[in-house]
Amino acid sequence: MTLSKLPFTVDALHAAYKAGLQPEAVVAEAFRRLDAVGDAGIFIHHAREQALAEAQSLGAPDGRPLWGIPFAVKDNIDVAGMPTTAACPDFAYQPGADAFVVARLRAAGAICLGKTNLDQFATGLVGVRTPYPVPKNAIDPAIVPGGSSSGSAVAVAHGVVGFALGTDTAGSGRVPAALNAIVGLKPTLGALSASGVVPACRTLDTISIFATTVAEAWTVFEAAAAPDEADAYSRPVAVPALTAPPPSLRIGVPNAASLVTFGDALQAEDFRATTARLADQGATLVEIDLEPFFAVARMLYEGAWLAERVAAVGDRLTEKPETLHPTTRAILEPGLDLTAVDAFRGLYRLREREAVCRKLLAGIDALCVPTIPTFVALDEIAADPIGPNSRLGTYTNFANLLDLCGIAVPTGPRADGRPGSVTLLATQGRDALCAGIAAGLEAGPMGATAWPRPANALPDAVLPAPHEIAIAVCGAHMSGLPLNHQLTSLGGRFLRATLTAPEYGLYALAGGPPARPGMVRHAASGQSIALEVWALPRIAVGDFLAGIPAPLGLGTVKLADGSTVKGFLCETQGLAGATDITSFGGWRAWLAAGASKAAPEVVA
Amino acid sequence: MTLSKLPFTVDALHAAYKAGLQPEAVVAEAFRRLDAVGDAGIFIHHAREQALAEAQSLGAPDGRPLWGIPFAVKDNIDVAGMPTTAACPDFAYQPGADAFVVARLRAAGAICLGKTNLDQFATGLVGVRTPYPVPKNAIDPAIVPGGSSSGSAVAVAHGVVGFALGTDTAGSGRVPAALNAIVGLKPTLGALSASGVVPACRTLDTISIFATTVAEAWTVFEAAAAPDEADAYSRPVAVPALTAPPPSLRIGVPNAASLVTFGDALQAEDFRATTARLADQGATLVEIDLEPFFAVARMLYEGAWLAERVAAVGDRLTEKPETLHPTTRAILEPGLDLTAVDAFRGLYRLREREAVCRKLLAGIDALCVPTIPTFVALDEIAADPIGPNSRLGTYTNFANLLDLCGIAVPTGPRADGRPGSVTLLATQGRDALCAGIAAGLEAGPMGATAWPRPANALPDAVLPAPHEIAIAVCGAHMSGLPLNHQLTSLGGRFLRATLTAPEYGLYALAGGPPARPGMVRHAASGQSIALEVWALPRIAVGDFLAGIPAPLGLGTVKLADGSTVKGFLCETQGLAGATDITSFGGWRAWLAAGASKAAPEVVA
Repeated sequence: MTLSKLPFTVDALHAAYKAGLQPEAVVAEAFRRLDAVGDAGIFIHHAREQALAEAQSLGAPDGRPLWGIPFAVKDNIDVAGMPTTAACPDFAYQPGADAFVVARLRAAGAICLGKTNLDQFATGLVGVRTPYPVPKNAIDPAIVPGGSSSGSAVAVAHGVVGFALGTDTAGSGRVPAALNAIVGLKPTLGALSASGVVPACRTLDTISIFATTVAEAWTVFEAAAAPDEADAYSRPVAVPALTAPPPSLRIGVPNAASLVTFGDALQAEDFRATTARLADQGATLVEIDLEPFFAVARMLYEGAWLAERVAAVGDRLTEKPETLHPTTRAILEPGLDLTAVDAFRGLYRLREREAVCRKLLAGIDALCVPTIPTFVALDEIAADPIGPNSRLGTYTNFANLLDLCGIAVPTGPRADGRPGSVTLLATQGRDALCAGIAAGLEAGPMGATAWPRPANALPDAVLPAPHEIAIAVCGAHMSGLPLNHQLTSLGGRFLRATLTAPEYGLYALAGGPPARPGMVRHAASGQSIALEVWALPRIAVGDFLAGIPAPLGLGTVKLADGSTVKGFLCETQGLAGATDITSFGGWRAWLAAGASKAAPEVVA
Repeated sequence: MTLSKLPFTVDALHAAYKAGLQPEAVVAEAFRRLDAVGDAGIFIHHAREQALAEAQSLGAPDGRPLWGIPFAVKDNIDVAGMPTTAACPDFAYQPGADAFVVARLRAAGAICLGKTNLDQFATGLVGVRTPYPVPKNAIDPAIVPGGSSSGSAVAVAHGVVGFALGTDTAGSGRVPAALNAIVGLKPTLGALSASGVVPACRTLDTISIFATTVAEAWTVFEAAAAPDEADAYSRPVAVPALTAPPPSLRIGVPNAASLVTFGDALQAEDFRATTARLADQGATLVEIDLEPFFAVARMLYEGAWLAERVAAVGDRLTEKPETLHPTTRAILEPGLDLTAVDAFRGLYRLREREAVCRKLLAGIDALCVPTIPTFVALDEIAADPIGPNSRLGTYTNFANLLDLCGIAVPTGPRADGRPGSVTLLATQGRDALCAGIAAGLEAGPMGATAWPRPANALPDAVLPAPHEIAIAVCGAHMSGLPLNHQLTSLGGRFLRATLTAPEYGLYALAGGPPARPGMVRHAASGQSIALEVWALPRIAVGDFLAGIPAPLGLGTVKLADGSTVKGFLCETQGLAGATDITSFGGWRAWLAAGASKAAPEVVA
């Protein structure tokens, strides 16, 4: 493949590096692509020389997960050696160090090409509220690029970088993804440190990740996520390997009344077609009235949280208002009049509305919504700088106030060629679940590139839902056998049949009926034993455990693919009088052979 | 026993009722006692007739936990048929219904005798900021009664009622307990519904319980606690049966620099004597610098949270300031000038300071502090209405801002006869742990009564409740050891220390830290191994199991008395590289011996 057509994805670049490509050539190619795009609005600061030097210093590929991957950083996140402006030239400063997340990405081998344009102080969803040239939408230059992370999204959509960092308070990490046909991963608040990030609303901000596929975004997230003691809002969030989602999810979707598209019938049609795919994949769609979520969304710009933005901008709003973009200033000024009493009343109201939303969320595993209700043309936003911007936040503004994680994913072009996009949202910590579902939906061109979309390579793990735990059973608990009801009566459901690693012995225990097996690990001399993996609601495990008699118990079972799962094990001591049936390879095979008398007895 | 000397405790009253005493007689006796005390400041509203009618309607004893127990309610909590004033006559209204908690207590059989005096709008820790007569301290009329729940504490201390409700935002449920030699239980925020309570700082308020003993307070708490859908701040909090605390706790105590007593050397001496008792009982005392906690405490009246009090009082502060107590007004007025930006900056600062405190708390099971640093005389507070009040909050103001639960407990008279008191504090949900520790410390007269203090009758907890399962742990999950938090954070509580049947081997597994033991049954050659049995909510077992790595698991353990319990076992296969430490008889003994090198290694 010629360099000019090489996808800047991790897999493609790492393969090319292995074949001899040099990172300096990739950096040069990235800037060639940028020049070819010819959009002076994407970057506020180019770092061509710094990036080339960094590429040269990388040496040989060393297995780091982002080795040699070019990326861009929204200009409200510090990168050492580059000014931070937040799209306010008067605000510019030279940071002494990388932001925590940027440092982690560079440590993972990624090369920063520069700082990208944004709605000033990350206030906006349109991408036009900047004193710099406005970045052009990568798909259709007549529509807004989306914001506030405009430059980062457009850079990824043009294939100039492999990924880019944005930030997301009201939807700034999702809306531009939808408008440019790429993925926008907005993690659980606190998963990505805010150290070195210019705040917008400090209690609601997170760094976000733009990439061309869910898998790419997840790879970046894995490298970026870590607790940061210097950020009081940092939290430990699980970032497991990305796998296919469980087949029997309950996914909430807006009911007819709350599928708001401002008259864009194609958007509603496209969204219903996407959710139909979820149903085809085995999900149960649960229609939800989103009005309580919209009520939360309205609090973000109409209520007390405006004061967080004022706090972030500091004295500038009163001392140097002329240094602000006129729209930004108009939005922030009412925040000066809010009192502390207003702020606390806002917190009370949020708590009440949150309780209503939490109850709705408790009945589902995730929520699927359109990322944007419709598109906004540049002339519309020129005529009314506020209204169309607010509309873009319909399905995004509530997420961070409710502590939801989310990911926006392209679902392929609508009938009119404009990019389709949905967002998966779920309660905090379910980032992997959302990403897994999203990966099953991503389709269509990758931004404005001609890159071939890679096959969805998510491992075909059949996983329990977040409220469940997987339990491997090897005997009378398997489907159709006498103790299976102990699982089904507690809400258990079958996930898959599989085999243990070749390290186990299987024994028919003395006693019964029902006859019961005991499985014991013998790393040196064991075999693979047939299992069934069931999903049991976590809250039912106590009752299940209470009914398991000695010598059996629940421990960790190693599977044939090297992964592990909780499941039945047997105390070695309990094998007294048992029959070694390992050679049958499983309990069903032994039952089928009717061979209980044939096998040699264990000597206790 | 003559009625006039009958303790109004649940045990004493229920025994008397069984012997034929009528509840009407108890109500009459309660009012006789009140008359005998002759303090017109205790109650704002007497409900003699209503209480008598309620007593008559009770019928025969029916087993309800608070059947026929007289109680009083702080006058910022609604009781149907009685006005609510919050000690502001102009604010008075007739509530249509009982507060959620009052309704539960009445449903449990308790009889409300009236509404008690308080620092107006629950703003104060002294009890003198009221337009009504100031209640007199029950122990020493020269010192303040303590507030804001002054009347409730004094009523209990005089034995007029069996228990009383207060509220606690800054310490109003703990300081008056200390000043009147009774118990003040301030539960985890959200455990007791705030429906029907006049807010002080809505995000920080809780109802609190005054009683003469920890066991009494806990009985009331059990009846009062329940989730309330109408209160967005309500949370489910575990309220297990009260049992003796685990023997090997790590209890934080102020270091020398932060044992603040404002020159009251007797208070420091008394406190050190009490913590010495904790050490005698087996606790490890961990000296902690409380300065980060004091920094949080200062935020309550000096920072943004003042605006919550202004929000609670509403327009009164600007429209009818003359209806407020002059001190209350002086305290609240600066809150009018606080902006929403101030409020959010306060939240940010709290989050940062909280992170520091949480790190200190992570190393201990509970914190033991003096409830008050010293006493305040009535003439002192008359001369300076603010300063001495602030000093009283030294060890209480930070608790609710940090989401700690706590209980103030009388520890017997100091050398000068004034009441000693300490408060046990712990992270949210550990109410039972704090109460269990407190029960081991309570001593001295019960308020101003001559009631004999009952023997500490906390059961040596052995059995799990029906919603729990007993889990035997033999290593790092034991109390005070590094993984114990995995049990406590899931609502686990200590049941007992015991031994296995003499049929087990104990091994220090390869790997760590933390070092982990594996216990394996060897019927023929094993020994008895020391265990702790913990009760874990059944619904939490799934989460607990999910965190247990190979080669450990949960199976069935045989105990020395021949019974069995679920508990940790280890796969025999997992002993590769492990050290046989069976001869030590238990994990703690091995740790104490520091003997990891001395024992023979297992041959894998």
